[in-house]
Amino acid sequence: MTKYQNQTRLLAAVDCIIFGFDGQTIKLLLIQRSFDPEKGKWSLMGGFVQPNECPDTAAIRILKSLTGLESVYLEQLRTFGDPLRDLVERTISIAYFALIDIHQYEKQISDEYHAEWFPLDSVPNLIFDHKEMVKLAKEKLRYKAALHPLLFELLPKRFTLPQLQSLYESVYETPFDKRNFSRKVLSTKLLVKLTDKDKGSSRKGAFYYKLNAKNYKADFQAFLNIIPNAHLL
Amino acid sequence: MTKYQNQTRLLAAVDCIIFGFDGQTIKLLLIQRSFDPEKGKWSLMGGFVQPNECPDTAAIRILKSLTGLESVYLEQLRTFGDPLRDLVERTISIAYFALIDIHQYEKQISDEYHAEWFPLDSVPNLIFDHKEMVKLAKEKLRYKAALHPLLFELLPKRFTLPQLQSLYESVYETPFDKRNFSRKVLSTKLLVKLTDKDKGSSRKGAFYYKLNAKNYKADFQAFLNIIPNAHLL
Repeated sequence: MTKYQNQTRLLAAVDCIIFGFDGQTIKLLLIQRSFDPEKGKWSLMGGFVQPNECPDTAAIRILKSLTGLESVYLEQLRTFGDPLRDLVERTISIAYFALIDIHQYEKQISDEYHAEWFPLDSVPNLIFDHKEMVKLAKEKLRYKAALHPLLFELLPKRFTLPQLQSLYESVYETPFDKRNFSRKVLSTKLLVKLTDKDKGSSRKGAFYYKLNAKNYKADFQAFLNIIPNAHLL
Repeated sequence: MTKYQNQTRLLAAVDCIIFGFDGQTIKLLLIQRSFDPEKGKWSLMGGFVQPNECPDTAAIRILKSLTGLESVYLEQLRTFGDPLRDLVERTISIAYFALIDIHQYEKQISDEYHAEWFPLDSVPNLIFDHKEMVKLAKEKLRYKAALHPLLFELLPKRFTLPQLQSLYESVYETPFDKRNFSRKVLSTKLLVKLTDKDKGSSRKGAFYYKLNAKNYKADFQAFLNIIPNAHLL
């Protein structure tokens, strides 16, 4: 007889909150659930943790099965374990949030699921406690992005300062002063200016930048100073 | 037939990383495990999540059963789910870290467990992956305490600036300049100076302070500026 024997066994799932940026707005990737209960309703992408998997591996597998993408930014958010959160059987869910370049996703999308991108301000009703997961992920994204250069994960390899500013404005739902924003971003030394311009968005055009990979890696934990009044978040 | 039926069921546990401060050093509360496997070895305080409990409730129950304390600072840290982490049976563990005033604990300690406080730099060998949990909790404590007034949770109701400085020095394992430290801490407006002094530690004595509860509650998410070179953490 061990102390283990009388305990309850339960299911463990992983749910992924997947953020993408389309150049203007930050969006959330949702799927229509393909099995009962709640079949056909909008849901985060998820799945059960398998016998040979740790939760991180399960999240990577699940994200890849939907998007075709590997090596994207993926972080454990929080475990949700209300005894009644799943309608069928007790299931705890380890929630992860992922940041992906939406354009890479578009090239690799799987047809297995009906998936759609939703702007964060018009997310439909979600099954179970997925709305709460999204809310927490959004808060954590704002918090971390105020401190670390996290949002670059959402951009294509080459991007312009107006694109970067749109991304920050979309995440924080607030306009930034253009000159201050550029000055602060450039002072981080994270960006390398390229020689060619994006001429699609304005007559004058905007120079492309790329990440300085060395500084980015070294400074990922460095505190940023891009967000005005970050302490009010 | 549902998609649920063929899945693996597993055990879910909660483990608590409990930090306390004795006035000089930050310490970790450990117990000697009372059942097999690994009976008699040092372990974090933990237990299985019960059928009617969410993990938060389980953590509160487990913490209370060991320390007698309720309403202490408790935060979900991370879920550990390596398939082989528990020797007997697959168990995922939701780790929490708690900050308690060690003096309150001493008044309420339960005899049910053999528990001991260990300074962070001399933690014994721990069972399973508990060492990894402690490492992560220590990192998170440093990270959060550099940004938020978290460490006050470890102090008694009345404390002196030298005590507060010892606490920060113990957490960051680095000396702080006394004058700068006092100036920065007082500029947060989180403290209220009391009229009497602690005369035990020096001839001149040190004034007692207490938290300004209103500002503390309102500013808990406020960024502190107490730690020099916080970006190097």
